[in-house]
Amino acid sequence: MPTTAAAGPGLDPDDNRRALELDRAGVFHSWSAQAELSPMVLAGGSGCRVWDYAGTEYLDFSSQLVNVNIGYQHPRVVAAIQEQAAQLVTVSPATANLARGEAAKRILEVAGEGFSRVFFTNGGADANENAIRMARLSTGRDTVLSQYRSYHGGTGAAIVATGDWRRIPNRYARGHRHFFGPFAYRSEFWSDGEEQECERALHHLERTIQAEGAGTIAAILIETIPGTAGIMPPPAGYLPGVREIADRYGIVLILDEVMAGFGRTGDWFAFHRYGVTPDLVTFAKGVNSGYVPAGGVLISPRIAERFDHDVYPGGLTYSGHPLAMAAIVATIDAMRDEGIVDNAARVGAEVIGPALHRLAEDHPSVGDVRGCGVFWAIELVADGDGAEPLDAATMAALKAELLGRGLLPFVTANRIHVVPPCVVTAQEAAEGIAIIDAALGALRL
Amino acid sequence: MPTTAAAGPGLDPDDNRRALELDRAGVFHSWSAQAELSPMVLAGGSGCRVWDYAGTEYLDFSSQLVNVNIGYQHPRVVAAIQEQAAQLVTVSPATANLARGEAAKRILEVAGEGFSRVFFTNGGADANENAIRMARLSTGRDTVLSQYRSYHGGTGAAIVATGDWRRIPNRYARGHRHFFGPFAYRSEFWSDGEEQECERALHHLERTIQAEGAGTIAAILIETIPGTAGIMPPPAGYLPGVREIADRYGIVLILDEVMAGFGRTGDWFAFHRYGVTPDLVTFAKGVNSGYVPAGGVLISPRIAERFDHDVYPGGLTYSGHPLAMAAIVATIDAMRDEGIVDNAARVGAEVIGPALHRLAEDHPSVGDVRGCGVFWAIELVADGDGAEPLDAATMAALKAELLGRGLLPFVTANRIHVVPPCVVTAQEAAEGIAIIDAALGALRL
Ligand SMILES: Cc1ncc(COP(=O)(O)O)c(C=O)c1O
Ligand SMILES: Cc1ncc(COP(=O)(O)O)c(C=O)c1O
Repeated sequence: MPTTAAAGPGLDPDDNRRALELDRAGVFHSWSAQAELSPMVLAGGSGCRVWDYAGTEYLDFSSQLVNVNIGYQHPRVVAAIQEQAAQLVTVSPATANLARGEAAKRILEVAGEGFSRVFFTNGGADANENAIRMARLSTGRDTVLSQYRSYHGGTGAAIVATGDWRRIPNRYARGHRHFFGPFAYRSEFWSDGEEQECERALHHLERTIQAEGAGTIAAILIETIPGTAGIMPPPAGYLPGVREIADRYGIVLILDEVMAGFGRTGDWFAFHRYGVTPDLVTFAKGVNSGYVPAGGVLISPRIAERFDHDVYPGGLTYSGHPLAMAAIVATIDAMRDEGIVDNAARVGAEVIGPALHRLAEDHPSVGDVRGCGVFWAIELVADGDGAEPLDAATMAALKAELLGRGLLPFVTANRIHVVPPCVVTAQEAAEGIAIIDAALGALRL
Repeated sequence: MPTTAAAGPGLDPDDNRRALELDRAGVFHSWSAQAELSPMVLAGGSGCRVWDYAGTEYLDFSSQLVNVNIGYQHPRVVAAIQEQAAQLVTVSPATANLARGEAAKRILEVAGEGFSRVFFTNGGADANENAIRMARLSTGRDTVLSQYRSYHGGTGAAIVATGDWRRIPNRYARGHRHFFGPFAYRSEFWSDGEEQECERALHHLERTIQAEGAGTIAAILIETIPGTAGIMPPPAGYLPGVREIADRYGIVLILDEVMAGFGRTGDWFAFHRYGVTPDLVTFAKGVNSGYVPAGGVLISPRIAERFDHDVYPGGLTYSGHPLAMAAIVATIDAMRDEGIVDNAARVGAEVIGPALHRLAEDHPSVGDVRGCGVFWAIELVADGDGAEPLDAATMAALKAELLGRGLLPFVTANRIHVVPPCVVTAQEAAEGIAIIDAALGALRL
């Protein structure tokens, strides 16, 4: 495992033990059984590298929870946080504040036509909560349609909109219905390829709307490119088709870009790839790379104006928090000045895509490769041409192998998500994929 | 209106206009109609004072949204944020991190006996979301009982648990029922005073449980001292009575200390005043004074152990965010070293309480005075001995009068909440109340 020359300024190797002890003594972890956890200790990072207190270093192919788009410890964002902290750390949402106004301005700029206001939240879940509320109140309808194979957040409404297993023990809310999105590799529609998958998925959505009763449906909530569920870019015609259906039935289209937005796909927003303009866009993560908790909703004029004279009944103490806002301003400025979104597009097209497709040729276990920018998944299967997912024990061994070779991977179910920071260089991308290649080879996969 | 000598280093008076313009151009505000907003601009602060870009200064009797318990720009907390930003701004919840472990340790220390783990969130709403989830999953029951006259947050489950008007347009979730808490000044139980109010409120709660079916009730969720709804300290016997009822029926007792906790009442937690130990405590705001968005749940061993071997199905990207955690560590350390909780208790008992009671004697409009620490409300009424609330126009005039005299007040419905930072000095407390006295006098109230 590669190690840095020294633990770095101020790092004490014994802090690995102390961090783990303190964690095990008092911290309750999300999405986990608590008893047998042994979390990795992290002490610092820079660009695409992270390390622990002993100086053990990893190349990060996870961006943590796919949020550190700008990489670790970007100096301009760190400095902006420090400066805002020195001036005014916190104010209430009811005030006006320069950092907040500047953040809204930049987000509206990079989003392009179709949006007039930004509502800020602390993260992705409450962004979706508020988008759902806006859709319900502006349509006077109740039901929210969302996809199986999706994740929208952990709060009461958002978790029930979620399409993976995590919604099942969380069914607190009414008015949520799920449908299948397009996914040609594991089609739910007996399709023979992308085009037929698209057509049939649109038919299925429209039939679901009709069967539920079009007049009851407030919103269609979709991840532009479903992320946690497997990074499944939709066929080119799917989102334009959904937009057309939504318009036909007077339904609000919410695109969840919490994971896909802010450079991840090689665009500012993933919906820019598909030539559609949603009514609401939810974002978090990449907007400031998670340097300070923040998320929000991009609002179209028609929905914003609905609350010009009627009170919008939603809020939270830290909406538009100055520290989070200063981090957004610096992040977007740095991403623009340094061409970070273009870098993600280029490294994706020139290095990651081709290298992953070569992996698929060299390793029978690689059943599918899909993605764009720095947002890729490879599916590992047991049976070559078939699609039988690789078993959990083998996936665990593979994850350990990758860590042992100095790669911090994002492994979930039978997939590796290749999701490095958007600042990843061609060389780092090649280095990381070579590690995956070697690990697959070592396990004869 | 008092002004600072100069606008301060780096402050440009023209930024007042710019901040307002940017805000009006792009920011969507919580709990508001958007068209006619003219938010106050804030540029900086220190201790109990805030100012705008032109140097206009206010004595803060609001703590923003009752969260800046440690005052503005506390140097130790600002430095801790800056240092953590320099070392490692963000990591995922699945890792272990020193700042997170140290934060959990301190919160468990100041909470005292009865808790073994801390789950971290971004704010108060998601703290309640997760406490409700823990209660539902650990009891296998569904219904959550909470009080009318309460606020628990803006997300799907939390907003429906909320007891004020804000839940009405937000009824997404099932399984929430409301009951009346004790409030002798406006009794719902035809009581003749505190003791009878307490007895009858407990009777009402138990009858509600029986009528709903005790075996269906997962949790009783109560603000230890309801805050936004009017700062209504319960009679001494109420919470012990609730604890006893919860135990009798196998119901989880969740105390929401998002507003009341971390020094606000002159105690580390408000429940310490009442000799009860809840099963779950939710917190946010004061835990780091909102310097970085953070909240969480204090978990009793019995509930934490429920998830030792079963996966806890809840989470969020920024759970235990290092920057927020570093701010918690520094806040709790500074509050302990500087005796800030004791200061709140002392200034409340020696200055604020007596001065507000004098106000009530001098002004016929002051119908009731209640609170403790730096957590007080005065009710303004139109009819002296009666309790007819003062009308909205007069309250708006009073708010303008207070602002004009250099006080940033917390005015809601017919009340002024006197909620300065916990670091308020005796002199500042007296100064602020003198302004309220003068403003009431000027309006002949
Ligand atoms: C697409 C999507 N939406 C919403 C969320 C929830 O965001 P948060 O964890 O900040 O609440 C996530 C988190 O992974 C996400 O990937
Ligand atoms: C008692 C109480 N609970 C919960 C909340 C919600 O907290 P947040 O706004 O951080 O979501 C508040 C906010 O004012 C509160 O006062």
